[in-house]
Amino acid sequence: MVKGIERPLDLLNQSKGKEIIVQLKTGKQIVGTLVAFDIHINIVMDNAKEMDNGQMTRSYGLAFLRGDTIIFISPSNLK
Amino acid sequence: MVKGIERPLDLLNQSKGKEIIVQLKTGKQIVGTLVAFDIHINIVMDNAKEMDNGQMTRSYGLAFLRGDTIIFISPSNLK
Amino acid sequence: MVKGIERPLDLLNQSKGKEIIVQLKTGKQIVGTLVAFDIHINIVMDNAKEMDNGQMTRSYGLAFLRGDTIIFISPSNLK
Amino acid sequence: MVKGIERPLDLLNQSKGKEIIVQLKTGKQIVGTLVAFDIHINIVMDNAKEMDNGQMTRSYGLAFLRGDTIIFISPSNLK
Amino acid sequence: MVKGIERPLDLLNQSKGKEIIVQLKTGKQIVGTLVAFDIHINIVMDNAKEMDNGQMTRSYGLAFLRGDTIIFISPSNLK
Amino acid sequence: MVKGIERPLDLLNQSKGKEIIVQLKTGKQIVGTLVAFDIHINIVMDNAKEMDNGQMTRSYGLAFLRGDTIIFISPSNLK
Amino acid sequence: MVKGIERPLDLLNQSKGKEIIVQLKTGKQIVGTLVAFDIHINIVMDNAKEMDNGQMTRSYGLAFLRGDTIIFISPSNLK
Repeated sequence: MVKGIERPLDLLNQSKGKEIIVQLKTGKQIVGTLVAFDIHINIVMDNAKEMDNGQMTRSYGLAFLRGDTIIFISPSNLK
Repeated sequence: MVKGIERPLDLLNQSKGKEIIVQLKTGKQIVGTLVAFDIHINIVMDNAKEMDNGQMTRSYGLAFLRGDTIIFISPSNLK
Repeated sequence: MVKGIERPLDLLNQSKGKEIIVQLKTGKQIVGTLVAFDIHINIVMDNAKEMDNGQMTRSYGLAFLRGDTIIFISPSNLK
Repeated sequence: MVKGIERPLDLLNQSKGKEIIVQLKTGKQIVGTLVAFDIHINIVMDNAKEMDNGQMTRSYGLAFLRGDTIIFISPSNLK
Repeated sequence: MVKGIERPLDLLNQSKGKEIIVQLKTGKQIVGTLVAFDIHINIVMDNAKEMDNGQMTRSYGLAFLRGDTIIFISPSNLK
Repeated sequence: MVKGIERPLDLLNQSKGKEIIVQLKTGKQIVGTLVAFDIHINIVMDNAKEMDNGQMTRSYGLAFLRGDTIIFISPSNLK
Repeated sequence: MVKGIERPLDLLNQSKGKEIIVQLKTGKQIVGTLVAFDIHINIVMDNAKEMDNGQMTRSYGLAFLRGDTIIFISPSNLK
């Protein structure tokens, strides 16, 4: 139904080089460009910005995020 | 008793392309269409909407949810 | 001493098709019919109802519950 | 020093068919007869009663408890 | 430097039959005699007493403690 | 798109010998020079300084950080 | 850059027999001499002292610490 997504990681693969929103278990969000990911859902983002309630609270450039702190990841250009 | 459900993942398989409700450990819910899942219960949803106490708090389009943040998943067209 | 229960999963096997109470780590309970389970204690229930302090707070039909959110499972016809 | 207990699970093996107290991470206790256990410390109890501060808050008959919610298990006839 | 302790479990091995203090993640302590342990740090203690802020709050005789609830274990005859 | 980063650990590899910011699950941050890391994201930092709300609260020299306490790691020279 | 530290555990190896500070997830610290460690970062310390906000709250002699309660470990002679 959704083109080319047979397994969950296919969405991450399609999102490489694109902007994503990452919801952390801490309640904060990181927005930025998805650079790389692995099967633990560890990810690297570029132009990473920490958001709290819609406000940018920090800017990090490149950032490595540990998979076990992530609730969900969404391509931000959709919807 | 319930047709075609021998193992828990069979319910997720039957729910592909259908609307589901996902209860997160954070207390929020995500409703949307189930696109894909894996054995870790990582899932991809389309038209994902975040609900809090019955109110839509956000709309995400496609979203990848990490399995370890999920309490339960229910097809929303039932009951 | 209890017929046919050599290993813990034997109780779940005997409970298939019967009503069970599932106590979640969130403090809520789900009551319904056990349809399927696996070794991670992921389960599928039918006619699943969420209970909070003895009050039904929601009704879900079929539901997939992740094993790691479960404290205990009890056949509800035993008291 | 204690007869027949070389490994921790030996105590559980000796306690089969006897009354035990199970301390849960939730702060509550379950008392009842140990029926079965496995290496994950998943256990089945019979005549399971939930205790909170020394008061019985519920009675369940047979119950399957997930090992990862347990702090400790003690044979209740020893004091 | 400390005789016979090459690996962490060597300390537990030396403490068998001796009194130990176990600090739990709940904030409470269990004191008693170490009877057995395994590689998960599941342990069995005899004459187990639950302590809270230096006060004995309960006495259990034999007790099986799940390793994942333990912060540290110390032989109580030292210092 | 980002040179030489095919997998998440490539960013950590490029950051060896450089200053990084580590966000801990406790809410604090550690800044210092990345010396070594492994696949569990255990890391060793040199000139490690603990920061709380932008204030240095402690200075540690060399420090070993357990991977499971880390939310993200960012090279601090990128902004 | 830092002599002899290729992998994170090399720092622990260099610290055997020396004084270390261990930061626990509970917020407390244990200071003492590192005696032994394993790949789970379970460690044994000698002359272990529990510190809370810079105050010694307890003294334990030898102590076995479970790796999963540790945030970081630092040789205390480095500053």
